[in-house]
Amino acid sequence: MGEFLSLLPPQAALETFLAAFSASLETETIPTEQSLGRVSATNIVAPHALPSFSRSTVDGYAVRAKDTHGASEGLPAFLKVVGEVQMGTQAEIPLGVGECAIIHTGGMLPADADAVVMVEQTQQASGNEIEVFKAAASGQNMLKAGEDVEADAQILAAGVTLRPAEIGGLMAMGVTTVTVTKRPTVGILSSGDEVIPPSQMIGPGQVRDINSYTLRALVEQHGGIANNYPIIPDNPDDFRNAATKALAENDVVIFTAGSSVSVRDLTAETIDNLGAPGVLVHGVNVRPGKPTILAVADGKPVIGLPGNPVSALVIANIFVTATIQKLSGLASTPLKAQIPAKLMLNLSSQSGREDWIAVKLTETPDGYIADPVFGKSNLIFTLTRAD
Amino acid sequence: MGEFLSLLPPQAALETFLAAFSASLETETIPTEQSLGRVSATNIVAPHALPSFSRSTVDGYAVRAKDTHGASEGLPAFLKVVGEVQMGTQAEIPLGVGECAIIHTGGMLPADADAVVMVEQTQQASGNEIEVFKAAASGQNMLKAGEDVEADAQILAAGVTLRPAEIGGLMAMGVTTVTVTKRPTVGILSSGDEVIPPSQMIGPGQVRDINSYTLRALVEQHGGIANNYPIIPDNPDDFRNAATKALAENDVVIFTAGSSVSVRDLTAETIDNLGAPGVLVHGVNVRPGKPTILAVADGKPVIGLPGNPVSALVIANIFVTATIQKLSGLASTPLKAQIPAKLMLNLSSQSGREDWIAVKLTETPDGYIADPVFGKSNLIFTLTRAD
Repeated sequence: MGEFLSLLPPQAALETFLAAFSASLETETIPTEQSLGRVSATNIVAPHALPSFSRSTVDGYAVRAKDTHGASEGLPAFLKVVGEVQMGTQAEIPLGVGECAIIHTGGMLPADADAVVMVEQTQQASGNEIEVFKAAASGQNMLKAGEDVEADAQILAAGVTLRPAEIGGLMAMGVTTVTVTKRPTVGILSSGDEVIPPSQMIGPGQVRDINSYTLRALVEQHGGIANNYPIIPDNPDDFRNAATKALAENDVVIFTAGSSVSVRDLTAETIDNLGAPGVLVHGVNVRPGKPTILAVADGKPVIGLPGNPVSALVIANIFVTATIQKLSGLASTPLKAQIPAKLMLNLSSQSGREDWIAVKLTETPDGYIADPVFGKSNLIFTLTRAD
Repeated sequence: MGEFLSLLPPQAALETFLAAFSASLETETIPTEQSLGRVSATNIVAPHALPSFSRSTVDGYAVRAKDTHGASEGLPAFLKVVGEVQMGTQAEIPLGVGECAIIHTGGMLPADADAVVMVEQTQQASGNEIEVFKAAASGQNMLKAGEDVEADAQILAAGVTLRPAEIGGLMAMGVTTVTVTKRPTVGILSSGDEVIPPSQMIGPGQVRDINSYTLRALVEQHGGIANNYPIIPDNPDDFRNAATKALAENDVVIFTAGSSVSVRDLTAETIDNLGAPGVLVHGVNVRPGKPTILAVADGKPVIGLPGNPVSALVIANIFVTATIQKLSGLASTPLKAQIPAKLMLNLSSQSGREDWIAVKLTETPDGYIADPVFGKSNLIFTLTRAD
């Protein structure tokens, strides 16, 4: 577990780490309308077909398609209007040969009808009769029962993030509660004799705690529940006690320690002694963020982040996010949307190292231009100036 | 206000609409740590410089750079260690010629020091002396006071969405509360004699309300507060009363009406009579979603969405989202991240019309492949099958 003996690339480090713990996936059942962003815990099948009856998709006339065969502008078909389908009711209108019924978009097709003619393709003739100017194909301008979903078809798989569309689909089927995985809890430990809570005035040599709050926000952004703990003084006993408590109370523990070598060593030692198997990865080939620690203690993931606020956010974005996703039971890695942009200068990187660089984007007629916002990884405002 | 006399392209329709109302921007002051995703309402300037003192960025020795000039592996500079800077305290260690102090990452530089030598570039000599193997440049391995932000510099502009980095930046400056704009309230009105609440069993000809819930989720996703109202029966009085109540109680009103022509007309008429100037856009050249209504009533935006669930979501994604952003006081349109993908078949569109097509993405070594998920705009599960 020596620091930096071998630096793993971020992707390999992530795979090693994620393979070393499993998701316990506790679940809870909540109202579907409050399930935005949550992850489904079970497969759900359709309790009935959708639509549950054949519906018109236009305003017009429900017809027997064969009664309109051969109809044209020059030689319209004449049909007798024998009723009007009322919205939201059973369409109990028997249609004989040459008969049709007025129907509105969304209306239920009478049992004898197999197509709908749009009102624009008809004209009122004498009395109860209409002229149809175009032949209708069977199934035209209608949704058949079960065309969206058949009864017993799977409408939601386990491990899916609920978006507005999924919520709508469940509501359409009358599924008003849904079983989702519990949000993973993430304990955030900050340390450093020089670190004080943001509400305090800073004295000489002191800095305010930033990481507890950026990490809290990042955890919430990705569906976790963040639990912040008091800042730990730089000594082994306090480290061990705080870590043990946080590990017992959370599904994940994140350390954001002071950045000096001695405090980094203290963090690594504390994490390694927290439970088996201990530290799996110590040092990742990424800039910023090299001194990252990935560990598992008694089955729970533990992450030691660099102390510098920019490094901590970059690394948390890779490892904390993926940890929350795994513990949420997400079946697949979410798609990562991108903004393609042109970099206007050359940036050098060390061979094998992954570099994360904050940029400011400017829209031009030829697409986005990316201007790097340079800054040391200690400078939080480097990130606020970037997109 | 006749329907579809002239179809505006979506972008032109959006510009016309957004120009016709202004944001009142009521504000509230909340704890910074709870401000994720909120929009800042005021400019904020730095109450002090950050860092507030010159800090070391490495573990090593605080030195007077000129004492190391000419130092090399072969001819090291000898410096006398006269103290150690304790983390989180004033560095009250005067440095005379040829003197240095032990310092840790993040430690405060003694007033006489102007550089830090990394411990790796030194070696313990006899007693209190160290050998320095490399000349230090003034300012090396340290952050100067104010290097992140100068006192009185603007650290946050009004109209910015608070991300983890902004929250961290404010906390670093001791700004533990922040004034943000109030979340806009959005009244959602659903109508249709055939539409029933999702908790009810559907009878013949009936469908469950989907749009109230997909729209609620979309509004929440974009930072608005959604207020759902009972389903309105299809008659003018009920429409007018529900609309008047929703307009009085919300910043925005969305109609998602039945889809038949008569109900669409009723929606358009109700919206137009709700307040001046009334309907601005009726019909947008987009598929799905042509029968969109954009209106302003007594200064408040009112949007009539198509009744079909897919159309309603597509249109809400364009117009409701932008409305919430404007009413939240966002200073610029958020960047739209994209996923470039290759479409494996040709899709035709009508000249001048914008088409929105749901796709399923598959990752391949050459990038993403997009497979369109075809489906009528009545089929909500078209969207749940898509990415």
